[in-house]
Amino acid sequence: MTETVTGRSHARRVQALYHSPWVAPLAALAEHPDGIYFGNGNPARDAQPVDRLRWASDIAWREAADVLSYGEMMGYEPLRELICQRMRLRGIEADPASVLITNGGQQGIDLATRLLVNPGDAIIIEGPTYIGALQAFDAYEPRYVLAPVDQHGIMVEELRAILDRLDQAPKFLYTVPTFQNPTGMLISAERRTALLELMRERGITIVEDDPYGEIYFGERPVHALRADDPSVIYIGSFSKTMAPGLRVGWMVAPPEEIELLGVSKEGVDVNSDRLTARTIYHAANGFLDDHVAGLRDFYRARRDTLVGALREELPAGIRWSAPEGGFFVWLELPEGGNSLDLLQVAGRHGVVFLPGGSFFPFGQEAWSGLRLGYSAMPVDRMVEGTRRLGIAIEEYLGTLR
Amino acid sequence: MTETVTGRSHARRVQALYHSPWVAPLAALAEHPDGIYFGNGNPARDAQPVDRLRWASDIAWREAADVLSYGEMMGYEPLRELICQRMRLRGIEADPASVLITNGGQQGIDLATRLLVNPGDAIIIEGPTYIGALQAFDAYEPRYVLAPVDQHGIMVEELRAILDRLDQAPKFLYTVPTFQNPTGMLISAERRTALLELMRERGITIVEDDPYGEIYFGERPVHALRADDPSVIYIGSFSKTMAPGLRVGWMVAPPEEIELLGVSKEGVDVNSDRLTARTIYHAANGFLDDHVAGLRDFYRARRDTLVGALREELPAGIRWSAPEGGFFVWLELPEGGNSLDLLQVAGRHGVVFLPGGSFFPFGQEAWSGLRLGYSAMPVDRMVEGTRRLGIAIEEYLGTLR
Repeated sequence: MTETVTGRSHARRVQALYHSPWVAPLAALAEHPDGIYFGNGNPARDAQPVDRLRWASDIAWREAADVLSYGEMMGYEPLRELICQRMRLRGIEADPASVLITNGGQQGIDLATRLLVNPGDAIIIEGPTYIGALQAFDAYEPRYVLAPVDQHGIMVEELRAILDRLDQAPKFLYTVPTFQNPTGMLISAERRTALLELMRERGITIVEDDPYGEIYFGERPVHALRADDPSVIYIGSFSKTMAPGLRVGWMVAPPEEIELLGVSKEGVDVNSDRLTARTIYHAANGFLDDHVAGLRDFYRARRDTLVGALREELPAGIRWSAPEGGFFVWLELPEGGNSLDLLQVAGRHGVVFLPGGSFFPFGQEAWSGLRLGYSAMPVDRMVEGTRRLGIAIEEYLGTLR
Repeated sequence: MTETVTGRSHARRVQALYHSPWVAPLAALAEHPDGIYFGNGNPARDAQPVDRLRWASDIAWREAADVLSYGEMMGYEPLRELICQRMRLRGIEADPASVLITNGGQQGIDLATRLLVNPGDAIIIEGPTYIGALQAFDAYEPRYVLAPVDQHGIMVEELRAILDRLDQAPKFLYTVPTFQNPTGMLISAERRTALLELMRERGITIVEDDPYGEIYFGERPVHALRADDPSVIYIGSFSKTMAPGLRVGWMVAPPEEIELLGVSKEGVDVNSDRLTARTIYHAANGFLDDHVAGLRDFYRARRDTLVGALREELPAGIRWSAPEGGFFVWLELPEGGNSLDLLQVAGRHGVVFLPGGSFFPFGQEAWSGLRLGYSAMPVDRMVEGTRRLGIAIEEYLGTLR
């Protein structure tokens, strides 16, 4: 229990709120007058369709008189229909009655955990995983089981061995199989099949978080896990394809559960903002396909720039991913390397990243890796930042020898 | 544990989602081709400043390019300043660093509970209390302690006796002291002092929910409990003074706790919609004082109509509140009366209300009362609805004898 100046004791879950992943990077950023920040996971400002959204908002307001009261617990129906159409591109067959509009994908993670997890229940997460998911999970006091991840996704045989040693059945597996945050990995076809089979065999629910699935750099979209298993709880978002400041995402679940999730959401915030849902609908309708095609070119070019710069500037012995989609490159230091220590050096050289331990539950940190986000980084800054990173790594590795 | 067709077991808290308060009223409404629904707690459509909000949205969108990314964990600062100014009218001294913008007041209830309550902890609620608060609390699996309420607010001496018999100290008291939902009551000056003293003496946090405080029908605003005790966690909302479809509220807590609440909210939905916060700010700024003065006249007239009609149409022996603000009249049936049974009769006569048991935790229902909402009800419908209610009550009381 933590005592505050008011003298009141907080719930156990509040302990987790004291471990902020932002303290170390922001302190490092303050070390240099012109720090370059690879920590940003935002879509690029230039890639956000501001004019289209503003136009759509104006249309939404034309019907506003009818929608300023409470209502639409499950979210605006035409938007749910549009989502179902779009999900077909990823192999997902679902109807609007299986969709709940949420305040960004983040709320979907919270609601799924609320549906499934009692304190002390085990859940499987990727190690490393999305920071915000850990923030959502922590409130429900789970026991974390880490599934090891490499550039081909979850290492399924290793996970099987871990499950065999567990004394309780995990309630779900949380995975970002397509262009993961933070590693950028895309699960391989072989691992994908094996993972679906293992989860089915063990009766473990899959919670699939898919904010980056549309930002693929190859020729064709890849199927979501949900495409092959309708029991998957799937979480989608307009944050990366439109703009995260508007907070619109969705979740898909079997009809009897989506209803429960909607009632559960009622207890959290009654319903999502009705004007914003309409704004996203009008903006997306007849526009999003072309817009997202442009985004793919835009982010592919940034990926290429970063990967090219890494090849130029980094010393030998550093491995990194060359992601086939999404926003992130993951970099692994040689054995014995600690990205939190590297961050101190890098801060002085004017470059900052998110150290690997931030993507693990508190107490289970692994610091050998680090995340570089290229989505919001202008090309010239990216090249200069990588140059600085190369110098910082050289210097840091020197201190290790 | 509940098994679904997917075969997965849900968390214990999900049980509470199966007890919907809307099933009985909606079934009763379907009994008549022209049912009059007193169950609506929305602000009147005519009282929502649609044009002003639309104008404000347009201004907000002019600066949109800068605010479409993630950001402003605590909410738009000028809006927090405006809120602090307005709260002064209610006797509250707080600065913007003590304010967190939320998705309506509902999210404030969720976040306060998340901060304070472990499963099995006791919390004190008013009996009856706001349905949505019960929905929020249920997710945290509290043990409910009921504080009896009459038209002067919480009966403090009775509450003291209840506390003396408890084997655990409650984590907080949740109260709507000003024009309560569902009873319409305003806590008396005497009870107010006694309640603050009792809670201080026992070290019990007050969570004050205040969505109706500005809708007073007297000459002057009444002070919030927070005015006399800065440790109170206070929850405010623009849902009644602007429009609930936009989902903007706030909470006030001591600075070190508001920061924790903000980090906690990050795990729920990262941040609130940034355009919507700006829309509410621009709409409220230089407008809300006059608008709310108009709302007071508007809702006072509806209260007068309903109370007048009740006086005309209801049989002797039925007591009801004549609220001094807010949206609701509470009606008590004579001893032995059950408002859920009355609802069946009333539905056939074409009038529907929310029966009293809905405002109590599952398993602790008291059905003698019922709630009539006048806020969203046109005057002619209100008079006709009350006429029908009088007939239904006569008929129902006849079956009791």
